[in-house]
Formats: sequence, structure tokens, C-alpha cells
Amino acid sequence: MPASVEIINTGNELLDGRTFNTNGQWMARRCSSKGLTVKRITVVGDSLEDICAAIREALSRKPDLILITGGLGPTPDDMTAKAMARALGRKLELNEEALKMIKRAYGLEELGSSREKMAWLPEGARPLRNPVGMAPGIMVEQEGTVIIALPGVPREMEAMFKEHVEPLLDQLSAGLARFEAYFLAYGVREADIADLLEEVAHKHPGVYVKTHPKVEEGRTYLEVYVSTMASSSSEARQKMEKVIHELSEGISSRGGSFKPFRPE
Amino acid sequence: MPASVEIINTGNELLDGRTFNTNGQWMARRCSSKGLTVKRITVVGDSLEDICAAIREALSRKPDLILITGGLGPTPDDMTAKAMARALGRKLELNEEALKMIKRAYGLEELGSSREKMAWLPEGARPLRNPVGMAPGIMVEQEGTVIIALPGVPREMEAMFKEHVEPLLDQLSAGLARFEAYFLAYGVREADIADLLEEVAHKHPGVYVKTHPKVEEGRTYLEVYVSTMASSSSEARQKMEKVIHELSEGISSRGGSFKPFRPE
Repeated sequence: MPASVEIINTGNELLDGRTFNTNGQWMARRCSSKGLTVKRITVVGDSLEDICAAIREALSRKPDLILITGGLGPTPDDMTAKAMARALGRKLELNEEALKMIKRAYGLEELGSSREKMAWLPEGARPLRNPVGMAPGIMVEQEGTVIIALPGVPREMEAMFKEHVEPLLDQLSAGLARFEAYFLAYGVREADIADLLEEVAHKHPGVYVKTHPKVEEGRTYLEVYVSTMASSSSEARQKMEKVIHELSEGISSRGGSFKPFRPE
Repeated sequence: MPASVEIINTGNELLDGRTFNTNGQWMARRCSSKGLTVKRITVVGDSLEDICAAIREALSRKPDLILITGGLGPTPDDMTAKAMARALGRKLELNEEALKMIKRAYGLEELGSSREKMAWLPEGARPLRNPVGMAPGIMVEQEGTVIIALPGVPREMEAMFKEHVEPLLDQLSAGLARFEAYFLAYGVREADIADLLEEVAHKHPGVYVKTHPKVEEGRTYLEVYVSTMASSSSEARQKMEKVIHELSEGISSRGGSFKPFRPE
């Protein structure tokens, strides 16, 4: 079983559609390509209750990892640390290591209360160094789930993901990675090959196939995505070979054509 | 209290990061600009259990509207109708109106089982005409919440949203709309104005203010977003005027500058 991840992205700007949830997609891509399964992405606003509920619900599904973005800054609507503490049933405490990180980031010896707020972490949490911004990240473990909160500013999130999350992903993935292949199918509709897809899925449970109907200049076709988890590309090729052959044969026999495709 | 919406987007391609969740953002933007509050966006994969759980959880929070995308097609991994039925405690039944829509869409008198599958809706549900694709949408009401499922293909979703969802949004919004203004603040950091933001939020609960730290060519600044719900632009202007004045004065007195900004 691949390790499982849930992602929680916070911020009103994600819920009113002003901002694309690029963080969610970026993190999901990274986790998946490392061989982990992202089970759910939840977007909630800047609300203590809503963030707390989302963390609690994610924890109840016992994923290996919960990744959270946003709400770590100094303003009053930044409340992820508080929501984490509440969801975990822990107190907030002034973390000395976090305090040092923040003083260093601002180049200040004395922090005001809004800056100091960023050093109040759930009991037992570890601050994560932010190499490009002010707010440290937060890492804490509860009942076998690692919970990591990173800032919502994409360049901060990405830098911290590479530094703090990727080593953990390598550990969780146990040497597996995701291998993918894309095909285009012309001359058949999804409904024409529904039985074929069911048959292939049943015969080869370790290989995932999904079709996406597309239209281009009035011509309809299917994009077919095939993927598997494997420890090497030769193992992946071996696992996917038969599936691709069966899809190709099945689509031909239904009067369609099937060819490899390289997405952008 | 503005009417509340939850959005559930389904599809493994959204969880492995292959595809941006453009549907979620697009729907959130439409609902927000009509004056509704989007409370949560949930992304789950093509799993009966996961879609069912997401619908059940959303229902338990009693929003006015739940919008679902994806999983309405003819392939075996399309299981939104089944998940809806299970979450609502209803049976699936062959809907005659849906059957007619699908026959018309394909131009066929006899549908195979995979095509007919799209006409099996939860008991008491209404099919929604799909003007550009094959699968009808699904509309059903339970305990004061309207639940609408639309296809995941963006051009189908958008066309059906305009035809079936927007009239409902107008009804739910009761004449309110969201009005927005953007500003840029230079020379102050978030931590410098955290107290000002708290004060303004406390004095003017009907107006929403949020800051977003940005960096451009090494220069840091804040994007400031101000919004309110109102029934006219003059009412909105009146509500936002004082807030904008207080922000401007507060930022100036802290040595910064504050000016209007038009986002792309």
C-alpha cells in the first residue's frame, strides 16, 4: 500500500475564486510522483473552527502525512498554529527555537506581539526553518500521522517543501515512484470502451487507466492515462505493457485508433 | 447571513496533480461574485466511498447548496450518482426523463448498459439537460440543501452552470453581490499593521480586509484586498469608504504608502 497524504489549503482568497489553488496542485504533483497517494485536498477559509475541523477530520482518516498551507503569518487572520493545537488537543507554547528563527529573519532582538505570535506552536511541535520568508513552518506527529504546516506564499511553501517535506516523502515512499504513459484514442467514445476498461482494470489491478473526453476543432477524442507504481522504469514497463497492448487491441477491434501521446 | 455553498470536485487527475482544479476555482468565483459564501472546496478521487463521505460530511454542515463535479459519465469509474444515492439514503432508479435526454444526445433509440447507466439517478432527483455533452446533470434536494452534480469536462460544466445553477444563485443571493477593491501598501510589513487590521476588522465587521505579502524584483510589498456584500455599488462604496480611509491613515502614520490597484 502506498503511503497516503491529505492536503489542507487555507485562505479566503482560495474560496472566493480570486486565487488559484496552485499550492494544492503543486504539492499533489510532488507527492504523487514520489509514489504517495493523495487521498483528499480540502480548502477552507481563514476560520479557526473550519481549519480545526478540517485537521480533525483528516486525522480521523489516519493518513501517513497531512500537509497544510497558509495562516502562519503575523496578522490576526493567521490562525493555523492555534487550529492545529486545538485539533490535536494540545496547548500552544512559546517555542524558543522558533523565536530565534523569527528574530534572525527580521534582524531584530525584540519582537512585537504580532511577530512573536509566529513562535507560539502546539506543544511538542518542531519549527521548520523558512529560508525565504519570516514565518517558520510547523511539524508535529500524532498517532502515526505527521502533520506539516507551511506558509501560503508559493515561493516560501516551495522552498520549505524541498527542504523539509521531500526527505520525508522519500522515506514514506519506500523506493516506489509513479510511472505514467499517455495515449490518444480516436474513433471511439467512452461509452464504446466502458466494458474494455472494466475488463482491463479487473485483470490488472496494479495498473490504473483513466479516459478523459476532449474536443479539438469540433473533433472529439479520448485522452487515455495509464500509470503504475514501481521501483524502476523497467518494472513499470513490464507492468504496463500488457495493459497497453489490450487497450490497443480492444480499441482497434471497436473501429478506433490508439497512439502514444506526449502531454505538454 | 449570505447563503452558503460547498464545492466537491471529484477525479483522480485532480489528486495526482496532473490537472488544475479549474472547475473549483471557476465555480467559487461565480458563487462569490453573486454574494454567496463558499465555505469549503473538497477534492476526492474516483472512489465510491470517498465521494459518498465528502457528500455526507458537506450535508452535515447544512449549506444552502452543494455543487459537485465529475463522475457522471459512462465508464466504470464514474460513480457520482451512486455516491449521491448512498449519501442521501436513497435508491438509484432509472429516470425516464434522463433516458430521453441521453438517447437524444447520442441520436440512438437503444442505449447499451454503459450509456444507460447515466440515466440511473437517486430517487426523487431531477436530470439537468447537458447542452454540449452526453451525461445529464443531477439535481436533488435534501433537508433544505440543494445538491447539484455537473460533469467534470469544463466546457460542459460551464454551460450547465449558466443554464441550471445561476438562476438558483440569483434566488439564494437575495439581491446581494460582492464588491471589491484592491490596494498596494509599500514600506510596511504585515507585522507592522497587524494591530491596525485587527482594529479595523473589529470596528467594521461588515467589511473584509486581507493582506497578501508579495515580492517583485526583490522589493516586498503588500496587496490589500477589501470587500463587502451590498445590494448596490453606492451602498458598497459607503460601507468601504471609512475602512479604506482608516487603512490609508494607519499605513501612512507607520511610514508606509497606500494606493489603489487594479489586478489583471
